[in-house]
Amino acid sequence: MIQAVVQIHLKHGVADPEGATTAKALRELGFGEVRSVSFIKTYRIELECDDPDLARERVDKMCRMLLANPVIQEYEIKIGNNVDTPD
Amino acid sequence: MIQAVVQIHLKHGVADPEGATTAKALRELGFGEVRSVSFIKTYRIELECDDPDLARERVDKMCRMLLANPVIQEYEIKIGNNVDTPD
Repeated sequence: MIQAVVQIHLKHGVADPEGATTAKALRELGFGEVRSVSFIKTYRIELECDDPDLARERVDKMCRMLLANPVIQEYEIKIGNNVDTPD
Repeated sequence: MIQAVVQIHLKHGVADPEGATTAKALRELGFGEVRSVSFIKTYRIELECDDPDLARERVDKMCRMLLANPVIQEYEIKIGNNVDTPD
């Protein structure tokens, strides 16, 4: 079994409503030092597969088909056997 | 300026609707090797602050006050000056 971690974030310049809303809420709670917040989606995927290269290829295809919107998002894939916390 | 990365994930045993829905959709798209998917929220926060210890303390407070639900979620905080991609 292989574990893959996919991190999906907005391309530079694309509006980040979740990040902006979170930054505003934090400032209203008194965290005036918050300059900006950006939101990143991370998926940890466990795969019945033993070939890291094949796993990377398949996860890349998953990103292109479902997980990421190539128009506004970019993604990074990390493949590992026991990626406890996403790195 | 300091950058903090907060990763928020569900506690073990707590249902993960986004992860489960994503796993189901991937299988339906032909990715039968997908065993499980877990979803992790990541925030990259830029702070007007130069003291890493103070930054960690404040971000921890942000998690307890807004970003994380302590009943069902756990969070990790990483503090750095230029954390390009969340690690």
